Amino acid sequence: MAAESIAKAVHDVLATWGAQGPGAIFFLVWAAVLVVGMQLGFMFLEAGQVRTKNVVSVLMKNLLDLSLGGIVFIFFGFALAFPDYAQSIGKWIATMFTANPWSADPMKAADPYNLAYCFFQFAFCATAATIVSGAVAERINFKACLVMTVLITGLLYPIFVLWTWGGGWMGGDTGLFAKVFGQPYHDFAGSTVVHAIGGFLAMAAAYLLGPRIGRFKNGKPVPIPGHNIPQAFLGALFLAITWYGFNVGSSAVLYDPTNESWISSLVATLAMCGGAAAAAFTTRFDPLWAANGLIAGLVAICAGCDIMSPFGALLTGIVAGLIIKPAFRLLEKLEIDDVVAACPVHGFAGVWGAIAAGIFGAEALGGAGGVSLAAQIVGALVCIAWALGSGFATFYVIDKVIGLRATEEEEKGLDETEFGVSAYPYMETRD
Amino acid sequence: MAAESIAKAVHDVLATWGAQGPGAIFFLVWAAVLVVGMQLGFMFLEAGQVRTKNVVSVLMKNLLDLSLGGIVFIFFGFALAFPDYAQSIGKWIATMFTANPWSADPMKAADPYNLAYCFFQFAFCATAATIVSGAVAERINFKACLVMTVLITGLLYPIFVLWTWGGGWMGGDTGLFAKVFGQPYHDFAGSTVVHAIGGFLAMAAAYLLGPRIGRFKNGKPVPIPGHNIPQAFLGALFLAITWYGFNVGSSAVLYDPTNESWISSLVATLAMCGGAAAAAFTTRFDPLWAANGLIAGLVAICAGCDIMSPFGALLTGIVAGLIIKPAFRLLEKLEIDDVVAACPVHGFAGVWGAIAAGIFGAEALGGAGGVSLAAQIVGALVCIAWALGSGFATFYVIDKVIGLRATEEEEKGLDETEFGVSAYPYMETRD
Amino acid sequence: MAAESIAKAVHDVLATWGAQGPGAIFFLVWAAVLVVGMQLGFMFLEAGQVRTKNVVSVLMKNLLDLSLGGIVFIFFGFALAFPDYAQSIGKWIATMFTANPWSADPMKAADPYNLAYCFFQFAFCATAATIVSGAVAERINFKACLVMTVLITGLLYPIFVLWTWGGGWMGGDTGLFAKVFGQPYHDFAGSTVVHAIGGFLAMAAAYLLGPRIGRFKNGKPVPIPGHNIPQAFLGALFLAITWYGFNVGSSAVLYDPTNESWISSLVATLAMCGGAAAAAFTTRFDPLWAANGLIAGLVAICAGCDIMSPFGALLTGIVAGLIIKPAFRLLEKLEIDDVVAACPVHGFAGVWGAIAAGIFGAEALGGAGGVSLAAQIVGALVCIAWALGSGFATFYVIDKVIGLRATEEEEKGLDETEFGVSAYPYMETRD
Repeated sequence: MAAESIAKAVHDVLATWGAQGPGAIFFLVWAAVLVVGMQLGFMFLEAGQVRTKNVVSVLMKNLLDLSLGGIVFIFFGFALAFPDYAQSIGKWIATMFTANPWSADPMKAADPYNLAYCFFQFAFCATAATIVSGAVAERINFKACLVMTVLITGLLYPIFVLWTWGGGWMGGDTGLFAKVFGQPYHDFAGSTVVHAIGGFLAMAAAYLLGPRIGRFKNGKPVPIPGHNIPQAFLGALFLAITWYGFNVGSSAVLYDPTNESWISSLVATLAMCGGAAAAAFTTRFDPLWAANGLIAGLVAICAGCDIMSPFGALLTGIVAGLIIKPAFRLLEKLEIDDVVAACPVHGFAGVWGAIAAGIFGAEALGGAGGVSLAAQIVGALVCIAWALGSGFATFYVIDKVIGLRATEEEEKGLDETEFGVSAYPYMETRD
Repeated sequence: MAAESIAKAVHDVLATWGAQGPGAIFFLVWAAVLVVGMQLGFMFLEAGQVRTKNVVSVLMKNLLDLSLGGIVFIFFGFALAFPDYAQSIGKWIATMFTANPWSADPMKAADPYNLAYCFFQFAFCATAATIVSGAVAERINFKACLVMTVLITGLLYPIFVLWTWGGGWMGGDTGLFAKVFGQPYHDFAGSTVVHAIGGFLAMAAAYLLGPRIGRFKNGKPVPIPGHNIPQAFLGALFLAITWYGFNVGSSAVLYDPTNESWISSLVATLAMCGGAAAAAFTTRFDPLWAANGLIAGLVAICAGCDIMSPFGALLTGIVAGLIIKPAFRLLEKLEIDDVVAACPVHGFAGVWGAIAAGIFGAEALGGAGGVSLAAQIVGALVCIAWALGSGFATFYVIDKVIGLRATEEEEKGLDETEFGVSAYPYMETRD
Repeated sequence: MAAESIAKAVHDVLATWGAQGPGAIFFLVWAAVLVVGMQLGFMFLEAGQVRTKNVVSVLMKNLLDLSLGGIVFIFFGFALAFPDYAQSIGKWIATMFTANPWSADPMKAADPYNLAYCFFQFAFCATAATIVSGAVAERINFKACLVMTVLITGLLYPIFVLWTWGGGWMGGDTGLFAKVFGQPYHDFAGSTVVHAIGGFLAMAAAYLLGPRIGRFKNGKPVPIPGHNIPQAFLGALFLAITWYGFNVGSSAVLYDPTNESWISSLVATLAMCGGAAAAAFTTRFDPLWAANGLIAGLVAICAGCDIMSPFGALLTGIVAGLIIKPAFRLLEKLEIDDVVAACPVHGFAGVWGAIAAGIFGAEALGGAGGVSLAAQIVGALVCIAWALGSGFATFYVIDKVIGLRATEEEEKGLDETEFGVSAYPYMETRD
């Protein structure tokens, strides 16, 4: 055999190794661990933006989002969202109980790559679920919040994933979108699939809950500052670091000769920088808007970070940083009290990201092509409709059955009334 | 040669590359960096659970645990624990001074994989050492603490590692356990080797030290709240993220065809979620028990995360979350003052983890088999005996020579008396 | 063909794969994400060391350093520093706008490895830039700070990188240093290229700014404690973890048969431990000096972590930990007010690191050889001269045009006067 044949054979083995073998799994687990880290980021971004008396409530909501949501998604939601990996919901659940990947003849669903992929997707789901908890902070009934988490991670989120990443009518190569628009809906790392879903579910929940006592007076918004800006920055910076798990990891393989998604690390960085700078310069350097601009840039770049030029990514981030404050003002006009600006930062910037992928992903603008602007706009609208529609319906039922809102007495300080503790018991604080 | 032969040759080279070469070393260093990160996690989990006046004392104990312990373990403890890697203590120490891995004929001990493995094991040792410092907080003599660290990282910890991971009588394939029980003691990622050792050393130290002034009144426990719940949550969440370094990394190779330990990321997640949820629901959502439940689930899954089904892992985590509070009450009955519940969370949950590996690792319960429940129970008892026995003896001698306990005057506030500083000099605080 | 030929062919392909292909890029991105994490570390190391009234100011300076500096460096500074990768500044900027790595015939500059390498180098540049912001805290004019960042990341830093890592007269294999000293200047991971540049730019800026009001009385230094020791420790520990991205990642390839730089993880650990222990034991366990000693050890080991024995690394770290406090006293003698000891920790320890690489890198002392002590000393002096010289000139011009210093009124509390917020609005604090 000629030397070239050997080289080709080696490349083929390596490609397999990098696409499904240990190389690919290591890459996937690396990225997933980063994305799990976003739980810490959201926890403190949110905790820093609430008042001292509701800090523990936010910590506990996030901890239980993760715990309950993780169990629900891994055992059930994943199989709903990814039939190709799980084979069927029944087979997947059976895998959880009886099959094991060490047996001589493992079930296909228990393939090591599939299990690692489930871990990876769990981390994404946990992110979507935790976005909601920030918007509803300081007045939600804790038990209602737990039920919300179970339904989001078990149904609302997996269904939209099925439609898109799961190969369904929006994202599948032979789905309705591909037929109508010539291209499937493109959301590489979750601008809408993770973030806008979370952001608009948050809006639905915040609307149904109503604003915190004192948040609006005669229809005019009254700002309620958060208790700890460094804590919010800690969360934002930790999110920025762990976000590379999203953008780089979303190729889900170490080696794919048709998709050199490695550029995503560089373009995500530019979008993040652009988002923070744009938000800072247009809000007279307001610290929380600047930090949220950093996040908004990252949210917006997710959809197209595999197909944009660096300059396209920078513009995507800048626009994201510019729209979040106006979006927040719009919500205030509707007397919707979104405590941490979850809907502007994840919902609005996420939808913008899907559209931006349609614009800057075009070959004419330096992108990789293979994306339809029309498909992106329609897909983003579907996302909003699903999140608001399913969110309103679900949370309305929860409200009727359990009651979404904490009592007026409890709202005087959830940490004390719901958890019997104080976040900082030895510090002198004021209301 | 046929194409299959080439493919086989390629696979063989790749397997070597993944087992000892750059692929394996990269994997090992990735995991080790995560485990080093646990130092930050423990630092803040502990600092948040002490009073304002003793925060700096905890920070300093953890910083010097890491610094002194790191030097002692890398130069000496590693060679004691892993004779197969270090060849002999003398050769290893010589490697530290004179040999280098770049020479044409490096000493075997300076093989790049061995050096990376030493780094990896250093991170585990630092974890075991730091567990103790939480239990003894708020009243230990700082200098005694430094001596404890040196002895733990240089002797007490490496000896138990030698017995288990180092191929000794418990964990070796031809050791006493393998002969008696048909299987060696199985502790994949350290439920006992790292955590229960740390937890029961902590118990021995806390017992010898006696409780903090005011912690018990007429034999009844008086709770002393920690100063900063968000800080404790920061530590707990950071531990959860970095814990994947333990569970995933403990295969220590990227590619091992006989052990697809990649499942560990998924099952560790379920144990963590189960531990937090179980602890939260059985303590009326007490924040610190919930956060400690998250850790307890992770502690317990370490031993068997390579051989359990997802459901077995979930149950392992749930049980871990359930036992920590009763274990804490038991210590209180004995008037042992374990400030951060180190012994319940690391000791009791660790021992449970070793037993759980014997239960849920069985093929009949969906596990991979190759584990003996009897070996696990006896091994866990050996762990407790070694930690309590060697701990009492060592700390007793330290007490007689240096004095374990800070003076009553110092105990009024270690930060001020031992370090001459205040953690938050501009904040108004109360006792 | 014989089996050996096949094995050789496989090794060759693997080596390529590990040097430029997906394996190398994954390794590079892993390391770069860690280094980006240093932004969080510096943010809190600095924030904890300022007074309550200037915390937000530090957070914002760091956030905008990152955002503005990132854009400037990626679009321009990188091309200036690394002509071999970027081909030319013009081509690189064109790459940013129009070329894409997915086209059938991508521009060479848009090679995936090059883009990942740019991301990696961005993270280093952001580190250098952020070092300055700590020294000038509590009295700098925010807008001047932004201009400084743009000039550092666009010019001052890239020029020194060009001279060293970019293959210029100091670091190039055929450059002036190589000709004069027989060896190029050796700074593997940036003791001087990143840290001493940052540290002496910080000194220049702190000198021009003058001390904070009240920092010196009749020529005698008056200590001004920082507001939050746990916050500073959080930053320091997070730096320690993410530092492995520097030391391990600086090989920039996964597989390089001529340079087994994997030892860097182990030796960096020893330098870190030695630095913290030395600083702690020689300052009566002063918490901030201990934490800064940890960092100083890491700064110093960067230059030679690929060529030192473990013992050499330990000594390097110990010396670094010993010199920072005397260096700080020296600055105080000159009435230079370096708020966070940036110049001692990054400047002095960085210069020591370059020299240490010349000492302990020698084969006679257990090192790998290939380094000239004379070259290291001269190179370190060039670094100091460039940083102080270009820094004074640049910052002097900024001072004349914009004004470096905040007004006396603003200095009463930058958070309130420049940003209109309080870091902890509900906490009772005192000045």
